[in-house]
Amino acid sequence: MSGRLDNIFSPQSIAVIGASRSKQKVSWQVLDNLLKFGFNGRIYPINPKATSVHSIKAYPSVLDVPDEVDMAIIVVPAAHVLSVVEECGRKGVKGLVVITAGFSEIGGVGIEREQELHSLVTKYGMTMIGPNCMGVINTHDDVQMDSTFSPIPPLKGDIAFMTQSGALGVAILEHARNVAVGLSKFASLGNAVDVSGNELIEYMEEDPETAVILLYIESFGDPRNFVRIARRVTRRKPIIALKSGRTEAGARAAVSHTGAMAGPDVGTQALFEQCGVLRVGSIQELFDLAMAFSQQPLPQGRRVAVITNGGGPGIMATDALVSHGMQMAELSPKTIAYLEKNLPQEASTSNPIDLIADADGPRYRLVMEAVLKDEGVDALLVITVPPVVTDDVEIARAIWEVARDYDKPTLSSFVSRAEDSPAFMELAGHGIPSYLFPENAARSLAAMATYREYLAREEGEFRVFDVDRGKAEEIVSKVRADSRTRLHETESLELLQAYGFNIVETRMAHSLEKALELAEEIGYPVALKAIHPKIVHKTEYGAVALDIRTSDELRRHFGTMSDRLSSKGLAPKEFMVQEFARGGKETIMGMTLDPKFGPMIVFGLGGVYVEFLKDVVFGLTPMTDMDAVRMIESIRSYPILEGVRGEPPSDVASLAEYLQRLSQMVEEFQDIGEVDINPFLVFEKDKGCKVVDARVILAPAGG
Amino acid sequence: MSGRLDNIFSPQSIAVIGASRSKQKVSWQVLDNLLKFGFNGRIYPINPKATSVHSIKAYPSVLDVPDEVDMAIIVVPAAHVLSVVEECGRKGVKGLVVITAGFSEIGGVGIEREQELHSLVTKYGMTMIGPNCMGVINTHDDVQMDSTFSPIPPLKGDIAFMTQSGALGVAILEHARNVAVGLSKFASLGNAVDVSGNELIEYMEEDPETAVILLYIESFGDPRNFVRIARRVTRRKPIIALKSGRTEAGARAAVSHTGAMAGPDVGTQALFEQCGVLRVGSIQELFDLAMAFSQQPLPQGRRVAVITNGGGPGIMATDALVSHGMQMAELSPKTIAYLEKNLPQEASTSNPIDLIADADGPRYRLVMEAVLKDEGVDALLVITVPPVVTDDVEIARAIWEVARDYDKPTLSSFVSRAEDSPAFMELAGHGIPSYLFPENAARSLAAMATYREYLAREEGEFRVFDVDRGKAEEIVSKVRADSRTRLHETESLELLQAYGFNIVETRMAHSLEKALELAEEIGYPVALKAIHPKIVHKTEYGAVALDIRTSDELRRHFGTMSDRLSSKGLAPKEFMVQEFARGGKETIMGMTLDPKFGPMIVFGLGGVYVEFLKDVVFGLTPMTDMDAVRMIESIRSYPILEGVRGEPPSDVASLAEYLQRLSQMVEEFQDIGEVDINPFLVFEKDKGCKVVDARVILAPAGG
Repeated sequence: MSGRLDNIFSPQSIAVIGASRSKQKVSWQVLDNLLKFGFNGRIYPINPKATSVHSIKAYPSVLDVPDEVDMAIIVVPAAHVLSVVEECGRKGVKGLVVITAGFSEIGGVGIEREQELHSLVTKYGMTMIGPNCMGVINTHDDVQMDSTFSPIPPLKGDIAFMTQSGALGVAILEHARNVAVGLSKFASLGNAVDVSGNELIEYMEEDPETAVILLYIESFGDPRNFVRIARRVTRRKPIIALKSGRTEAGARAAVSHTGAMAGPDVGTQALFEQCGVLRVGSIQELFDLAMAFSQQPLPQGRRVAVITNGGGPGIMATDALVSHGMQMAELSPKTIAYLEKNLPQEASTSNPIDLIADADGPRYRLVMEAVLKDEGVDALLVITVPPVVTDDVEIARAIWEVARDYDKPTLSSFVSRAEDSPAFMELAGHGIPSYLFPENAARSLAAMATYREYLAREEGEFRVFDVDRGKAEEIVSKVRADSRTRLHETESLELLQAYGFNIVETRMAHSLEKALELAEEIGYPVALKAIHPKIVHKTEYGAVALDIRTSDELRRHFGTMSDRLSSKGLAPKEFMVQEFARGGKETIMGMTLDPKFGPMIVFGLGGVYVEFLKDVVFGLTPMTDMDAVRMIESIRSYPILEGVRGEPPSDVASLAEYLQRLSQMVEEFQDIGEVDINPFLVFEKDKGCKVVDARVILAPAGG
Repeated sequence: MSGRLDNIFSPQSIAVIGASRSKQKVSWQVLDNLLKFGFNGRIYPINPKATSVHSIKAYPSVLDVPDEVDMAIIVVPAAHVLSVVEECGRKGVKGLVVITAGFSEIGGVGIEREQELHSLVTKYGMTMIGPNCMGVINTHDDVQMDSTFSPIPPLKGDIAFMTQSGALGVAILEHARNVAVGLSKFASLGNAVDVSGNELIEYMEEDPETAVILLYIESFGDPRNFVRIARRVTRRKPIIALKSGRTEAGARAAVSHTGAMAGPDVGTQALFEQCGVLRVGSIQELFDLAMAFSQQPLPQGRRVAVITNGGGPGIMATDALVSHGMQMAELSPKTIAYLEKNLPQEASTSNPIDLIADADGPRYRLVMEAVLKDEGVDALLVITVPPVVTDDVEIARAIWEVARDYDKPTLSSFVSRAEDSPAFMELAGHGIPSYLFPENAARSLAAMATYREYLAREEGEFRVFDVDRGKAEEIVSKVRADSRTRLHETESLELLQAYGFNIVETRMAHSLEKALELAEEIGYPVALKAIHPKIVHKTEYGAVALDIRTSDELRRHFGTMSDRLSSKGLAPKEFMVQEFARGGKETIMGMTLDPKFGPMIVFGLGGVYVEFLKDVVFGLTPMTDMDAVRMIESIRSYPILEGVRGEPPSDVASLAEYLQRLSQMVEEFQDIGEVDINPFLVFEKDKGCKVVDARVILAPAGG
C-alpha cells in the first residue's frame, strides 16, 4: 500500500476535469485555488469547449494531454464521471479526487453509479478520494496544493485534518485560518469509496510533516480496524477527534438491562478511551487542543502555575484548571522568596501569581523565568487582561522568548483580545498558543496531561485462558437445535462455568419437598427463585426471596411465591435453591452486541441503584489485562471496591480476570448476542468472585 | 433609598478629582472617556497644579467649582482620598465613584482608611461606588456617561453588567464590543463599602433601560439577602451570573458525612437554583446567553427546529440541543408536504432541515416561514456554513426579516464567520443573536427554555408546623448545660420527635438480659447497635447488626460486638435495640452549617453507595413546599423513589414535609451546627417516613 496516497497528496501534474471558465463555478474555484496557492507542478484544465481556462491551455479530454498526468480532480456533472474516470484510467492517471456529488448519498441510481466508479478505480489500480468530497490540501513546499474550493487559503503547519463532512470542512478551514492554525494536510473524505479514514490515518502516521492528527467523524466505517490502527498511531502522534451524531441512534430496543444501559454513544466513547484518542465536544475545542499539541511540549505532570496581571482571571483560570483535573503548583520557598524580593508589594506571590495591573514585559519575563525553573511546576499559563498599561506586544514577546528556553508547556490567554490583534499575532507567530479566555487554555493543558499519562500507561497483554470450549459448544448447539435464542438459567450458568466462572451453589427443585431437601444439603441461609419462561426480571415479579434462614421461612416463601405467580398465570415450572452468599459486594458484568462496534463488555456495581445512576463502564473486546483494570477503576463508585468505612478491599484482580474471560468467551462465540451476569458477587481480596444469576441470549440465527 | 443610585448613574455635573494632564495616567483616560462618549452635562477637572486639563478649565479643589457638582470621580493617590472626599461632602456632592486603590484589599493601614472613608460617606449622606473600582457607565441618551478607563467605548443596549473584578470588567467590556453586545449600565463594584451588589441589582430591577442583568461574582456579601432580592427580580428580568472561586474554599473539615459531601461550591449552586439565577461557567457563555435573552422572546417549550445548508453542522446542532435537554421538533405533515413541494429533491425535509449547499436567501425565507408557522415548533436555529454560493448578507437579511414577524426565538450560527463580517453585522444589527458555532446557540436556547420554565413554576408556600418547641429547647439547654455540643443518640431522636419526625421503635439496654427482653417487646426482627462516645460512624466499627430474627441470633451478635469493641478499648456503654423496619427505602436527610450561606439542607438516597456517588442535593432555608419537592425530584436516582421494576412509589410528599420540618427546626434553633439523619426510611406512598439513626451537633458555644 505504500505510496498509494502519494498519488493523491504529491502529484507532479494535475488535471482539473470539468474546469469551467465561469468564476461562479466550483470547478473554476478549484483551479483558482491551485493557482493561488502556487501548486509546484503542472496544471491541465480539461474542458471540451474551451482552449484555455484561467489563462492556462485547456484540453478537450485528459487523453489529449501531451504529458503524464499524475492526478485528476473531477468536477464534471455526475452523469459524466464514469466516462472521464475511464479516460483517466486509460491515460495512466494514478490519483483521483472526485468532488462531484450524486452517488450513494442520493440513493437509487447514485448507488449503482458509485459501484461502477469503484470497479473502474479497482480495474485501473487508481487511488481515489471521494466522490462527493471537497478536495485535499498538501502545504508541503515541494507540492503546495490546495485542491479545495474553500475561499480562504490554508496556513502551513504540522496539523493534518480529515473530515467526513465537506460543509464543516470548509467552515473548519476558515476557522483554522482565523485562529492562525497551520495545516500539513487536509482531506475531505466524501463517500470514502476507495480511500478510507483509516487508510488516511495510517498515511498521516508516517507523514514527517504531520505532528497532530485531527478528525471530524460522523460514523465509523470499520470501528475495529480503527481501534487497531489508532492504538498504534496514538503512541506516536496525538489524534484529536470530534465525533458528531452522539444522539442520532436514538432509543435502541434492548431486552436486557445491560443493553438498555448502553446509550447510542457509549461504543464511541469506549473505543476512543481504549485507543487513546482525545475526544472533543466542539469545533472550538478541536482547535484549542490542536494549537496546544502542535506548538508546545507535553507536561510531565499536572502541576500548573498561573501568572496574571488581574485577580479575577487568575481565579477563573484556577477554577477551570482544577475542574479539569489539574493541580495548582506549589511554588518552592526559593521561588517565593525571589518573587517577594522582586515584585511590588501589592503583587501576590502565591499561585496564581498576580503581577498587578501595571505589569510590563520585564516583570512578566522575570516571573516566568523563576516559575519555569521551579521543579514543582509542570506547566505554565500566562494571562494578560486589558487595559494593559504598557505595550502588550512587549509582554507577548517576553512570553515566547522565555518559554522557548524551557521544556515545559506554556499557554497564554490575552483575555478578550481579538485574534487579529498585534499581541495575538506575536504569540501565534512564535509558537505560543493563545486563547481568548483562560478556560480554553486550562482545558487544553488538561488534555495534554491526559495524553501524556496515556503514553506512560502500560498497554498490558491479551491473555488467553484455558477453558472448556467443547462444553460451551455443546450448550450453544443444543440451544440452536431447540430453535431457541435464550439459554435456560442452568445453561447460562454452565456456559459461564465452562469459561472458568465460579457459580454460587445452585440446585433445581420441582417441589417444596425437594426444595427443603436441597436447602438442607446446601445449608441455610439460602435463596429461592421461581423459574418461568416469561419471567425475565425475577425481582419485578416478586420471584426472588433472599436470606432464607430456616425451613419454616423457606416453606412460607415457597407458598407465597407460588400463589402470587399462579394468580398472574405464571405458575412456576421449577425453583432454584441457591446458597445465599454473604460478605460479597454485588457487581454486574455483561456484554451487549452493538450493531456497529460488535461485542461491548459492561461492568458496574450492582443493584437497582446503579442501574439508575448509570455508573457503568463499557469496553471493547479483545481487552488487555490493563484495559480490564482501568475499566474497573474508572467507575465513579470504585472507592467502594477499595473498601470504605473500614471494610476490606474487594478482589479487583479477580474481577479483572473475569472481564477478560468474558471477553474471550464472546470473541470465541461470536453468535452470543447478550450476557448479563447480575449479581456477580466479588469477595475480599484473594477470595474471588461468584456468579449468582446470569442470562445469556444468542444472536438471532443467521443474523 | 429611591434615587440613591441616581446620584451615581444620572449626574448632571461631574468632577474628576485628580484629573492629570498626562495621557499615560488613568485619570486622564477617565476624563477622555467621559468626553469621547459625549457626557450630557458639565465636567470639571480638579487639579491643583493645572488651569486646564484636556482643554477644559480645571479647578484646584472641588470647593472652587462655581456651580453645583452632582458626582465626583476620585482618582487621587490613596493618601489624599479622605481629604478630597471631605471636600466633596462640604461641597454637597451626592455621588462618589472612587477608583483609587489602596484600601482594605492591602490590609493594615488600608483597612483603617476604608473605615474612615465609610464614616465620611455616611456623615455627608453620599452614595459611593468603590473604592478600588474601575468606574460606571450609563449609556442612556440623556446621560451618556462612560467614567471607566476602558480603552473601548461601550455600545448602547439593554443589558446591565455588574462586576466584582475590575480587571475582568474591562476584558468583558472589550468582549461585549467585539460581539456587538450593547449595555444599558455598567458598574465595577470594587470593595463595595457603601453600594453593594444587592443594592445595584434592586436598582437594575427598576431601571426601564435594562432588560437583562449580568453579574460577575467572586464572593457574596450577604447571600441570604441576595436570595431574597434575586427571587423577586428574576420574576421580572433574567439574572445571568458568572461565579468564580468555585474551588477556592478547598477542603473543609467536617465531622459528619453530610458535611463532607458539601463541596465549596454547593452553597452557591443551591442559592442560584432556589432563586432562578442562571449560572454560566465562562465569559463566553455569559455573553452567549446575554445576546439571546436581550434580543429574542422566550420559547414556550423545548421543541426546536434546525435549518441548515450543510449536513454536518445540522448533526452537531442536534447533538448539542439534545444534550442540553432540548427536543428536536416534529414538523407537522402539512409543513413537511410544503417543504417537499418547494425544496430541491436533494434537500432533507425532516428536522434538522438541510437546504443543501446552494441555498440562497429566498430558500431560507420560504423554509423559515413554514417552520415558524408550525405549531409544533417553539424555537428556531438557523445555520449557514461556508462556502455560501450566494450572498450571505442576503441570507442574513432573510433571517431577521422573517424572524421579526413571529413571537418565537430565532438564533443563528454563521459557522466560523468572524464577528466583524458583513453577514454577522447584518444579523447583530437587527436583533438576531449569531454564534460562531451551533453549540453555543443550542446552549443559549436551552437556558432560555430553563428560564421560561422557572417563570412558570409555582413558588409554593412557606409552611409553619405546629411543633413541640418547649421540648426541643429543653433538650438543647441540657446539652449546653453539660458543656457538650454533641447530642446523645436518644437526645437526637427526641429532638427530631419534637419536630414531628417518626422514629423507629428504639430502646436502650445496658445488659444482654435487658436487650433480650426489649427485643421480645419490640418484636423480631430487630437491630442492635452499640453506643460509645468515641464511635461516630457505627458501621465502620462493626457496631451495628441488622435483621436479627431470633433470641439466639441476638445473643450471638451481642457477644461478638461486645468482644470486638472491648478489644479496641471501646467497650460499649449501652446498646440500642431497635425495630428492624422492612420495606422502606433508605434516604439521608440533614443539615450542614455553611460559614457563608448558613444552614444548608441536604437530601439524597442512602447507603454507602450514594455517599460515594455524590447523588445528593442541597437547599437553603427557609424553603417552600415546592422547593422541597423540587429538591427531591432533582437527585439523579429519583426514579428509584418513583418505583422501579414494579415496586410501588415512595412517599415523596412525606419526604417533602420532613424537609420543611427540618428547615423549620434549624431556622428556629440557629445554634444547631449539624444534623445527619441516616438512614431515614421512606415507605410506600401515604405510609410516611421513619428515622432510624440520627446525629445532631450544636455549633460551638458563642460561635
